Amino acid sequence: MQTLGLKLGERAYPIHIGAGALDQPELYAPHVRGRQAAVVTNPAVAAHYYARLQAVLEAADARVTRILIEDGEQAKAWATLDHVIDALLEARCGRDSVVVALGGGVVGDLAGFAAAIYQRGVSFIQVPTTLLAQVDSSVGGKTAINHARGKNMVGAFHQPLAVIADVATLDTLPERELRAGLAEVIKHGFILDPEFVAWLEENIERLLARDRAALEHAVHRSCELKAQVVAADERESGLRAILNFGHTFGHAIEAGVGYGEWLHGEAVAAGMVMAAELSARAGTLRRDDAGRVKALIRRAGLPVSGPALAIDRYLELMQVDKKAAAGKIRFVLLDGIGRATLRGDLKPDWVRDSIAAAAQ
Amino acid sequence: MQTLGLKLGERAYPIHIGAGALDQPELYAPHVRGRQAAVVTNPAVAAHYYARLQAVLEAADARVTRILIEDGEQAKAWATLDHVIDALLEARCGRDSVVVALGGGVVGDLAGFAAAIYQRGVSFIQVPTTLLAQVDSSVGGKTAINHARGKNMVGAFHQPLAVIADVATLDTLPERELRAGLAEVIKHGFILDPEFVAWLEENIERLLARDRAALEHAVHRSCELKAQVVAADERESGLRAILNFGHTFGHAIEAGVGYGEWLHGEAVAAGMVMAAELSARAGTLRRDDAGRVKALIRRAGLPVSGPALAIDRYLELMQVDKKAAAGKIRFVLLDGIGRATLRGDLKPDWVRDSIAAAAQ
Repeated sequence: MQTLGLKLGERAYPIHIGAGALDQPELYAPHVRGRQAAVVTNPAVAAHYYARLQAVLEAADARVTRILIEDGEQAKAWATLDHVIDALLEARCGRDSVVVALGGGVVGDLAGFAAAIYQRGVSFIQVPTTLLAQVDSSVGGKTAINHARGKNMVGAFHQPLAVIADVATLDTLPERELRAGLAEVIKHGFILDPEFVAWLEENIERLLARDRAALEHAVHRSCELKAQVVAADERESGLRAILNFGHTFGHAIEAGVGYGEWLHGEAVAAGMVMAAELSARAGTLRRDDAGRVKALIRRAGLPVSGPALAIDRYLELMQVDKKAAAGKIRFVLLDGIGRATLRGDLKPDWVRDSIAAAAQ
Repeated sequence: MQTLGLKLGERAYPIHIGAGALDQPELYAPHVRGRQAAVVTNPAVAAHYYARLQAVLEAADARVTRILIEDGEQAKAWATLDHVIDALLEARCGRDSVVVALGGGVVGDLAGFAAAIYQRGVSFIQVPTTLLAQVDSSVGGKTAINHARGKNMVGAFHQPLAVIADVATLDTLPERELRAGLAEVIKHGFILDPEFVAWLEENIERLLARDRAALEHAVHRSCELKAQVVAADERESGLRAILNFGHTFGHAIEAGVGYGEWLHGEAVAAGMVMAAELSARAGTLRRDDAGRVKALIRRAGLPVSGPALAIDRYLELMQVDKKAAAGKIRFVLLDGIGRATLRGDLKPDWVRDSIAAAAQ
């Protein structure tokens, strides 16, 4: 097992990565000993891991309550949030309780947001069980629910006390979700680390075959890269925005087809192809490097083109994207492989053409 | 006009107090210049002050949007929150927008919470127009909505950029709300400042007659006292809890009769009489000092006894009060006039008897 630190002053926390981490009481005990721990999860994940998590939390001297939410992106909604708040109150959870998010990105985002606002904020621990959550959403403190007018429009920055990422839980992950998680791994390489991109180009088949050592390396390096960015810019006032590479297009795809139709990672994958295309048109990325982006995404079994939406619909959906300052859209472009830049001065035609080039 | 500072490091902010402050563009300009300002208010307050606020914000170079919510405590609910979020999205407010809360405690709590969670947090300004909001709820960054199981159970600590308290707006305040605001003024005296209690005992009639100089002094001293406590303990991990003097009982009263039946200040007034009674029983407050608490509250035209609820109902409602750590109720007691202490070791009989002594 390896442990990374997210350096955030008084909000610093450890990220534990390794097979079997889920069952180690000493990882939980400093945070839950003598407290009430409310585990938020969904039925599919609970069937695999709840009993083990309950046992390890009890071994760490916590009183454990289970709160089930429905599966899928549609759970990131007011109604689910109210359900979790209600269950916390019914279980008489006080301000010293700890919410434990057991599951993927939806569970983490929803449970983390519930923890952020329950009684004006209680602690929480992330126990991510999908690749997407392990490499991305569980790290950095972003929590949110969706709104009909846009994804993640309501939320909070709320850092966990710890992240416990057991790569052995990926054994039970559906194939499609494994691939979707790889989209964020690939993203971290393209925006931050050319050597990691080269490693991914060599090892993508090992990752798809769930080689445990390869997965552990990919999760570890992804978390390390993301942790550096978050430590430098916790609340996304600058640098952190580069983590949204592919996401402005990706969020439009998710909203356009209806949340949950495309997995987040699938939408980001097609969005990265569009963003790489836009980078090439803006002159910051060589054509052959844009080709490397597309090729790696294709080899990961991810979509390299968007759904059949009108281009005007894409643009309309992107106007309300929350990265848009005062109605002006800014895009994360690649400035070569392994380097990203934020640009707000792009010609509208380039944006249209990039969508068209990558649309079905 | 007087300006206080709330000293909170990078979250420090000014509190401007004085007749006419509402109309001074220079108080707003540093925070809204070139930005979109979304004013959250209710129809009654808007009728008096919206046009003036719109004019001053435009003079400070902001683009202004109005968002109306219903009046009264029932507005502190998910549905209103969703309405405000929806209106912010419809108006295409970006992450650099500023929410301006124009109204009393309900507007401030709701608008502040909406600002805390909209796109994971945007800035806000408090423009309190009730005495309660000017002396208490607009200062300190507590925002929240209510839940059927308890008041303020969902919320955030989110500090404003500035508080602009125009005491001239109290001219239009209904008599009952003026008295309710005095409850929190009186509270600040009893927990923190014996000289201010003596001043209140001398000047309560001037305050009720809306003498502007007396009101300005009361608002100023209340904000000063509260700001000191908040600066020392922003997130209520210790000292700040003393501001809840009378509130554990008060919240039970509000929940027991249904939110909105009793005004918050009225419930706190009766709650302070109960808490003073409890202090006397616990031996921390002399009998004649408990009498001073009751006498001043009565002279302010506020209730000195609770509604006709069964004592067991009070206790049941207090169990889920959010100040209860792991199911154990802690009370703020007076340790003499002008000093408060937090106690968790009180005999259940004392609590029952204190409620009974102050019940109708």
